[in-house]
Amino acid sequence: MINITFVDIIDYIGTFAFAISGIRLASQKNFDLFGAFIVGMATAVGGGTLRDIMLGHSPFWMTQWVYLAIVAFSLLVFIFFHKGIHKVSNTLFLFDTIGLALFTVVGYEKTYSAGFPFWTACIMGMFTGAAGGVIRDILINEVPLIFRRDIYALACGVGGLVLAAGLWLGFSDVISQLACALSVIVTRILAVKYHWQLPILKDDVK
Amino acid sequence: MINITFVDIIDYIGTFAFAISGIRLASQKNFDLFGAFIVGMATAVGGGTLRDIMLGHSPFWMTQWVYLAIVAFSLLVFIFFHKGIHKVSNTLFLFDTIGLALFTVVGYEKTYSAGFPFWTACIMGMFTGAAGGVIRDILINEVPLIFRRDIYALACGVGGLVLAAGLWLGFSDVISQLACALSVIVTRILAVKYHWQLPILKDDVK
Amino acid sequence: MINITFVDIIDYIGTFAFAISGIRLASQKNFDLFGAFIVGMATAVGGGTLRDIMLGHSPFWMTQWVYLAIVAFSLLVFIFFHKGIHKVSNTLFLFDTIGLALFTVVGYEKTYSAGFPFWTACIMGMFTGAAGGVIRDILINEVPLIFRRDIYALACGVGGLVLAAGLWLGFSDVISQLACALSVIVTRILAVKYHWQLPILKDDVK
Repeated sequence: MINITFVDIIDYIGTFAFAISGIRLASQKNFDLFGAFIVGMATAVGGGTLRDIMLGHSPFWMTQWVYLAIVAFSLLVFIFFHKGIHKVSNTLFLFDTIGLALFTVVGYEKTYSAGFPFWTACIMGMFTGAAGGVIRDILINEVPLIFRRDIYALACGVGGLVLAAGLWLGFSDVISQLACALSVIVTRILAVKYHWQLPILKDDVK
Repeated sequence: MINITFVDIIDYIGTFAFAISGIRLASQKNFDLFGAFIVGMATAVGGGTLRDIMLGHSPFWMTQWVYLAIVAFSLLVFIFFHKGIHKVSNTLFLFDTIGLALFTVVGYEKTYSAGFPFWTACIMGMFTGAAGGVIRDILINEVPLIFRRDIYALACGVGGLVLAAGLWLGFSDVISQLACALSVIVTRILAVKYHWQLPILKDDVK
Repeated sequence: MINITFVDIIDYIGTFAFAISGIRLASQKNFDLFGAFIVGMATAVGGGTLRDIMLGHSPFWMTQWVYLAIVAFSLLVFIFFHKGIHKVSNTLFLFDTIGLALFTVVGYEKTYSAGFPFWTACIMGMFTGAAGGVIRDILINEVPLIFRRDIYALACGVGGLVLAAGLWLGFSDVISQLACALSVIVTRILAVKYHWQLPILKDDVK
């Protein structure tokens, strides 16, 4: 905890934004403080937890109390400032997007360095970024949002492919990761700004 | 990928049928292409993923891109041919049933050869065959179908017991596996043909 | 199976109570016998299963058929006695609470002895006690009860902290575990008797 790097700070900001997104939805379902904490935690660390389990590790947060503390802090922030939260929704969107970009990079790197092929790393990047939101929606008993709206997980997929391409073209790790993060952020911002949507699948049942 | 065995082909056909079942339900919920892909993937490989995690492995599809490709192919087939899909529902049912039988055998064998007792292998055979459908129903926010209708997972259970009995009686692996697959298929077809249902549990609340 | 200890008996009683709670809710959803069995099983062993997976083990019930047998026994009991089940709801509550206490101790001990810090052990104690109920509610497609009502998982958290404090103060394992179990039971009983609730989180959306 003494040496907090720039990457750590981004990680914490992303965790905060993800936790707030879970806590907001929990509050709309009239969850109690405990329920809101759990949903916030699941949103923030759920994707990384699934990734670690699939890679055969124990989840990363089990040895680092800082993630628990950030979710607790998010809950306090929400309790005291929820009335003003819509005023900072642009800031929260930015935090969320930055977090999404970092989580994609982390998911990719952990998977790729464990010896899996690049496309598995891309998928695990998407998992790390987007699966927390799916777990959140399952816990609040809603159809997962990212299956119906928005370019969200797909932005992680784009980032993963950029990272793979960067490494394949011989760029350094750091350059490739920065390009990955940037492409996640740009894709996500453009998608929201221009209301990009994937086509909805046509129903075959009348 | 050069040597594709007969078992591989059955595996791919089953994966295709499972993916289509997920994509169809996703389309009825107006999911977008990404959501449909994820639900198709979860239906096709979700059961085996849970099984592998419980056995302490990384999920099988993480090192074999063919499953991803089959789900993508399923999505394309659905997009272009969904209007005619009800005309081939018998064929899809057959594919699904053949897949169910193979997945049962694979789940049993992986578990048994890892040193677990036969009844755990039976359960993991059922998991491999039926848990994907449960994950699918959770993702589309419906009560899992197999808990209310049909003899489905139970057909896998019957198959698992047949495989255990075959081995116990001294038959070879291949004979026992074929008997297992056949009993899954026959149980499933008879159950659908004659509308076999398990008794519904009576509610204790008035 | 020859040597059944006192702890085993409590474990089995808790498993029975948890399974009955799952089967009751399954019956209210008109699940069939198979569905009720699966929901009972998920409620009884789901928390411990998640814990074991996070710790990197195969789930405990995969090598001990007794848990499967207890859930099957619970289903039989429910089928034959469900009309009178409300008459014994106090007994079931007691069984459930005793189970919750034991599951907390087991979850804490397994995690702590695997080398994780005390707060991770507390969380895993809560997981072992309460996550089965969350999985149950996801399977029956309801918003998890413990996120909105009751001091339930929090009782496990209190117990975990008592266990950690006991060990930290130099008490023996057994004394600390007994104090943990007792504090879970007392917290839970007081919470139900005096209708303790956590504050509901206020919604920020009008």
